Amino acid sequence: MVRTEEMIRTHPRSVRREGLIECIDACFECAQTCIACADACLAESGVQSLLRCIRLNQDCAAICQATGEVLSRQTETEWGVVRAQVSACLEACRACATECETHAGHMQHCQVCAEACRRCEDACRRLLAQV
Amino acid sequence: MVRTEEMIRTHPRSVRREGLIECIDACFECAQTCIACADACLAESGVQSLLRCIRLNQDCAAICQATGEVLSRQTETEWGVVRAQVSACLEACRACATECETHAGHMQHCQVCAEACRRCEDACRRLLAQV
Amino acid sequence: MVRTEEMIRTHPRSVRREGLIECIDACFECAQTCIACADACLAESGVQSLLRCIRLNQDCAAICQATGEVLSRQTETEWGVVRAQVSACLEACRACATECETHAGHMQHCQVCAEACRRCEDACRRLLAQV
Amino acid sequence: MVRTEEMIRTHPRSVRREGLIECIDACFECAQTCIACADACLAESGVQSLLRCIRLNQDCAAICQATGEVLSRQTETEWGVVRAQVSACLEACRACATECETHAGHMQHCQVCAEACRRCEDACRRLLAQV
Repeated sequence: MVRTEEMIRTHPRSVRREGLIECIDACFECAQTCIACADACLAESGVQSLLRCIRLNQDCAAICQATGEVLSRQTETEWGVVRAQVSACLEACRACATECETHAGHMQHCQVCAEACRRCEDACRRLLAQV
Repeated sequence: MVRTEEMIRTHPRSVRREGLIECIDACFECAQTCIACADACLAESGVQSLLRCIRLNQDCAAICQATGEVLSRQTETEWGVVRAQVSACLEACRACATECETHAGHMQHCQVCAEACRRCEDACRRLLAQV
Repeated sequence: MVRTEEMIRTHPRSVRREGLIECIDACFECAQTCIACADACLAESGVQSLLRCIRLNQDCAAICQATGEVLSRQTETEWGVVRAQVSACLEACRACATECETHAGHMQHCQVCAEACRRCEDACRRLLAQV
Repeated sequence: MVRTEEMIRTHPRSVRREGLIECIDACFECAQTCIACADACLAESGVQSLLRCIRLNQDCAAICQATGEVLSRQTETEWGVVRAQVSACLEACRACATECETHAGHMQHCQVCAEACRRCEDACRRLLAQV
């Protein structure tokens, strides 16, 4: 998103950390994509075979939203909490991407969602290597 | 965000509505910006004079997140609920922008946040004219 | 919840408003119930006939969470924003309750969820009459 | 909350797990308490000395909300994701409780919030021992 970098730059206490802005953006994007993918799966004629995909989409969306929120703050950061939450986010994105990839051949929304999940998984992994 | 349009396009039941994609993106961006602005205000030496700004940032963030989530779904939409939530979002963005603008001259994060709030307020207004 | 009243009572600026604590509790309970009902509907053999119920459950959950959060704050309240968000919550609870009631005869989770939605709808209505 | 147990009991696929209902309730209560405590701290005359408390409250609230949501679902649970998120929740509750306890002697809202955080931390620990 255009303004994520500006908000970090103008924060009175922020320390720029490599990969932070990318990870915040990836979390918000992945949350949006997972909410939309759960809903698209629900509208498919074969919804019965997509229950696991819907569940993982929903969990991934909730976890990415919380993670994007935590990472957007710079004041008095408790790194142990951040690391634990980013680790949970990595795990949720990995699980959701793996499931979406099994449907990606015949449902484009799962293909797009899998890409957003992999992007967020990678961003979480890179950030964890820095903090 | 790059994938919002793709998720709407690949949804099995989506009807493209003018202004929908812009409004979803504006909600997620405004949520991120408001979370970051509340936190930046907290780190300012004059935090005592920023309590109203922090409060409005936090309410606006929570309301934008819920609105972005509701708008991301296309299946079995209940338009009365959507209209009421987008109206609340417009009101929260307007109030937060008005407050941030009073601090924008000496705090850049409030300037950036006010822009995100006005963008989202406008996107909500345009969407309400369509639905 | 046990601690909602204690948190209002120990807040340095809180003004007790009739119906506030009940509305906060009803919002958090309704959010939990709607998340669980959407997931229970997904696991039913007749999921195809429950798409509208799942959608309304999900929207109601997101809106109740945001409303419960906004109402939990007492510092520098902007009542126009609160009223708009509580109005959206009332609308979401009413729509979700109406849908859940059509399934309540054969699915107990919809019966329980409808009760939580009606309780929250009523709490929103009473609060709106006070603020 | 009254209805958490009813929603688990009436879910078509739920398996009752010891400590699950208690953990869901503790997450929602802790989220509410942390949102209220961050806001109460903001209204204190010594807000400058409460920045770390406010930050931890806000992170704990977001993480508890996501965890309560994930735990409320019973369909196609991916236990690796659940474990990672409950672990992050335990960490957030522990950190927030430890901070709130340092202020509990002179601010009652921090005392109440610390109790909610310790209850949720314990509930997460017990659930992690079962799953």
